[in-house]
Formats: sequence, structure tokens, C-alpha cells
Amino acid sequence: MWRPFLQPYHLIIVQDGDPTKKIHVPEGYDYELYNRNDINRILGPKASCISFKDSACRCFGYMVSKKKYIFTIDDDCFVAKDPAGKAVNALEQHIKNLLCPSTPLFFNTLYDPYREGADFVLRYPFSLREGLFHCAGSHGLWLNIPDYDAPTQLVKPKERNTRYVDAVMTIPKGTLFPMCGMNLAFDRDLIGPAMYFGLMGDGQPIGRYDDMWAGWCIKVICDHLGLGVKTGLPYIYHSKASNPFVNLKKEYKGIFWQEDIIPFFQNVKLSKEATTVQQCYIELSKMVKEKLSSLDPYFDKLADAMVTWIEAWDELNPPATA
Amino acid sequence: MWRPFLQPYHLIIVQDGDPTKKIHVPEGYDYELYNRNDINRILGPKASCISFKDSACRCFGYMVSKKKYIFTIDDDCFVAKDPAGKAVNALEQHIKNLLCPSTPLFFNTLYDPYREGADFVLRYPFSLREGLFHCAGSHGLWLNIPDYDAPTQLVKPKERNTRYVDAVMTIPKGTLFPMCGMNLAFDRDLIGPAMYFGLMGDGQPIGRYDDMWAGWCIKVICDHLGLGVKTGLPYIYHSKASNPFVNLKKEYKGIFWQEDIIPFFQNVKLSKEATTVQQCYIELSKMVKEKLSSLDPYFDKLADAMVTWIEAWDELNPPATA
Repeated sequence: MWRPFLQPYHLIIVQDGDPTKKIHVPEGYDYELYNRNDINRILGPKASCISFKDSACRCFGYMVSKKKYIFTIDDDCFVAKDPAGKAVNALEQHIKNLLCPSTPLFFNTLYDPYREGADFVLRYPFSLREGLFHCAGSHGLWLNIPDYDAPTQLVKPKERNTRYVDAVMTIPKGTLFPMCGMNLAFDRDLIGPAMYFGLMGDGQPIGRYDDMWAGWCIKVICDHLGLGVKTGLPYIYHSKASNPFVNLKKEYKGIFWQEDIIPFFQNVKLSKEATTVQQCYIELSKMVKEKLSSLDPYFDKLADAMVTWIEAWDELNPPATA
Repeated sequence: MWRPFLQPYHLIIVQDGDPTKKIHVPEGYDYELYNRNDINRILGPKASCISFKDSACRCFGYMVSKKKYIFTIDDDCFVAKDPAGKAVNALEQHIKNLLCPSTPLFFNTLYDPYREGADFVLRYPFSLREGLFHCAGSHGLWLNIPDYDAPTQLVKPKERNTRYVDAVMTIPKGTLFPMCGMNLAFDRDLIGPAMYFGLMGDGQPIGRYDDMWAGWCIKVICDHLGLGVKTGLPYIYHSKASNPFVNLKKEYKGIFWQEDIIPFFQNVKLSKEATTVQQCYIELSKMVKEKLSSLDPYFDKLADAMVTWIEAWDELNPPATA
């Protein structure tokens, strides 16, 4: 199903778990495949910042890519159909979202004013209509299995998302959102170094909060740097619910911790001196160490890993020399 | 078209312009009709706060109503059809929106979590899922003629809104929005005294900014008092575009002024002592006088009218005695 939509692009596959297992990639794709041995070889001791046995490992791919636009999906996500029954070209819509300016400073009630047949509504200030705000992230949604936490999965095992909402919108400045990595695109040049999926899975006290962590970090940095993040279209079809009992085990610390983490992020104020994504991210890592380590020693480790991630990023992506 | 949807409710009709003209109300409706003579008789000198020859006069109806939920529409708005061709019961949807809690503190990517088939997504903090935030306002949208300003009307005379977006969402705390009074409902007990449509039309230097003014005021007060405002469904069908040349004349000062008014509202901080809508509104009127009068003497008059409006409101709606 994906072939017509994915084949034109370059794929990076990050193989999680046992590196001796052989992954079969269908013919005709232009791809790179990295397993844990590759990650260890390429990053050396800095490989410690890349999670193992958790979907967070995918962010290694963001680091080694040389492309401007990144699209990341889960392995249980398939092509969705729009209400007319037409297969959704998710990549095309993500790229449209990323290429059109965003509108984080004021809410447009007709959603994305840059879509065909739409515009800024009456009373939308003209000074805020200029394309001052580049779009750094495009968060797509899911039909069928919704992205619920374990408790909601347990309570509503049969709920399916069948509502195709034909909208794209910019998430307002100052508002956090629960970012999901199932169907996500971003502009690597604008926000790549902040798209770190944290320390999850093997050897860590938490899982399934990888994309959430990245979402909080990128949102406060986008707000600081004057970048926008959109959510809505495109949809993908999410085929299978993960096991809620396993999820509960992975999530339960996150469910407690997020009650403190979210107020922390809501109050983050980055300094005027932080003008690059890397500078913002290093500042954020210091705040995480200072403010969240009291919650659990895990955040001390995570703050260190955030610094390692940036060091590894800069090593693999040296700034162009003049 | 409206009969099956409006007949069960009590109507208040505010007749603008010449009071000697006779308005024909179709049979079978339970209604009150007020013309300018009635407004003058009921409010005496305080009638000065009610606009004449402008749709802003409708807010007199909010003041004399004794109902909890108010729905206000323009005279060129008809019943919309959903994508399946079914007539939209706008009032039913507005009341649903107002009865379900709102979620201003955190963005739910699947839109209103209280709709059937939806919920809070993974990573939405549990402490913010409780129904702490009543919904005070429900802003519905428009198919066919979009709510554009005169310049956009002039540039895109043929644009029609055909996109039915099947979503309701809470506008995040701290985010202003361009409120339109064409298809609007609110909880009079929660926010009524702030739903003042300002001084517009006859004798004023501005028109068409009545609902916008109310929208900015209610949003900062809702944010302060912990109330939510929703936008999205229900749609109405907006049948005719108003004349863009006439609109430009009414709007052009607003187009300039809003560049200062919006930063003003974005920076409004109400005091802890302001715990009722009336107290918030009086505080806001003082800020308008202090900060916006330098823009134009009109704002001095408007600030006074805001106080008169609250006095008139309290006169017609005396607090229940113990």
C-alpha cells in the first residue's frame, strides 16, 4: 500500500533489538539500514543516548539523515482513506503543511488559512498574516486505533477513531500538545536537533514517552524561536492496538511524572542568548537537571543524554565552513 | 428551514433602524420584539450604550433575556447541511458544546475529547482531564460565504467555504480568536455581562467590529476565570456576502486599530480581586481607557459605555437576594 507514496523517497530504517536478525526490505526502495551494532560503531560512547528496545531508537535516523524533510511512521501504520475512499498521500500533505507558513500568534477559526478555499477570517490582524512563522513540524493523525494510554485502552478497548476531520491547524504559541511519533514530519534544518526521543526502553524506568518528550521540547523551542507546529491532516490507518497491560507497565511512571513535567515545560523560559536549536536544547537540558532531578534520578541521566545527543548531532552534522 | 429548530425556543428579536417599521414574525413562535423606542424606554439614559444601525444592537437582547443559554444569528444565515445531506441542528450542537467541559490548558489532538468516539489521547495529563473548565462560549462556523474582511472580499469575491470540518475544539488559554457573531451561543450565567458588542454604527467611527470586540473581551475574562470557549461545529449556511465597499468604509479604522488593540488584549492581566464577570469587565474598561484612548478618543467613549453596559445589566438583572 505504501509503495506508490514511499518509493520516491529515501528511507532510513533503524532496526531495534537483536542486530543479528535480518530485516527484509522489499525491492525497489532506496534505503539505509542501521542496527544496534551500526549505531555503536558510528557514535562510539555517545551511542548511550540512543534508546534500545524502544521506538525511541528511531531518532538515530534523524541524526544520520541528510535530508531537509523527515517523515517518521510506526510499523503498524498503513495508508488511510479519505471519506471519498481515496488513498491519502500522507507525505504530500505533510510537505504541504511544512511548506506553508504557520500562524502560532492568533487563532484562525477557518483552520489553515493557506489551504485552497480558505483564508484568514475577518478581524485577523493583517500584520500577523505575513509568512513570518515557518512551519517546523507537521503532526498527522490516525484513523482506526486511536493513540490512547493504557488506562483508556483498558476502559474503552473497542473504541475506534472513524472521524476524518478535514483540517490542519497551527498549535498556538504557549500551548503544549501531546505529540505522537506514529505519523510525524518535520523540517530537519529548522528543528532537527531538538527531535530527540529521549532515554526509553532497555535499562530505563520508562517507555512510550519518547515522542511526548520530543513534543514538549520542540514546542517550547519553536515558541522561543518563532516557529510553528501544525496538527491535523494527513491521516494514516493505525492497524493494531498494542497490549494495554504491557503499555501500563511502560507508562505508569510517566503518568505520574507528567503531572510535574507539564507544569515544568509550561514555565520554561529560554534566554535571549539561545538563538539556535542546539543552544536552546542545551539550556533546556540544564533546566531538566535542575528542576526535574528531584522527581527521579532518571531525569539527571536524561539531562546528560540530551547533551550527548547534541554533541553527537554536531559531530555527524558539522556546520558548513565559510 | 429554521422552524423545526427554532420553534421550541424563546426568541428575542432586536429590531434595528426605524422603529415605526413593522416586522413580520411568522406564526407559532414564542417571541419578544424590541425596537429602538423600547430600548430607550427600558434603559433610559443608559440606552446610550446600545448601538444603533449596526448589528451590535443585538446585545440588548442578551441583557433582557432570562435564559441560561443564548444563541444569536444573523438574518442571512440559514440551516446548513452536513456532508451526508442532513440538516444541521445548530442549537442542539451549541448546547452540547456548552454542556460538555472545555480543555483550555492543554491541546487534545483528537479535538473535543467529550464527543462520542473520541477521548483524551495518550500523554494528556490526567489531572487536566477533570471537568474543571466549564464551557462559556460556543462559536459556530459558516458554509458558503466565509466571514472575510472587505479587502479579502475584494480580492477573492468568488471564494466560498465548502469544507465541512467535523470538529469542535477548545481555544487554548492565552490565545485570542476572531469571534464572529453570525452563529454564536453562550452561557449567559457564566459570561453574559462580558458579551457587550460595543459602540458601533450610527454616530460612531467604526462598524463590523462588534463581535470581534466582544470576542476579545470574553476570551481574556474566560482565561482569567477558568472558563473555556469552543469553536467549530455547528455550521450554518451564510447566504449573502455584504457589500465589500460599504464594509471597507465601516472597517478601515478597525483594520488599523486592531494592530494595537490585539497586543493590548494579549497583555491584559486582570487582578486577583476580579472574581466576577462584572468586576473583570469594569477592570477591563479602565485598562481600555488608560491604554487605548491615545489611539483615538473613541476608546474613551467606549470605555465609558462598557461601564454603562454593566450598570444597565445589573439594573435589569439584580443579584438574587439571600
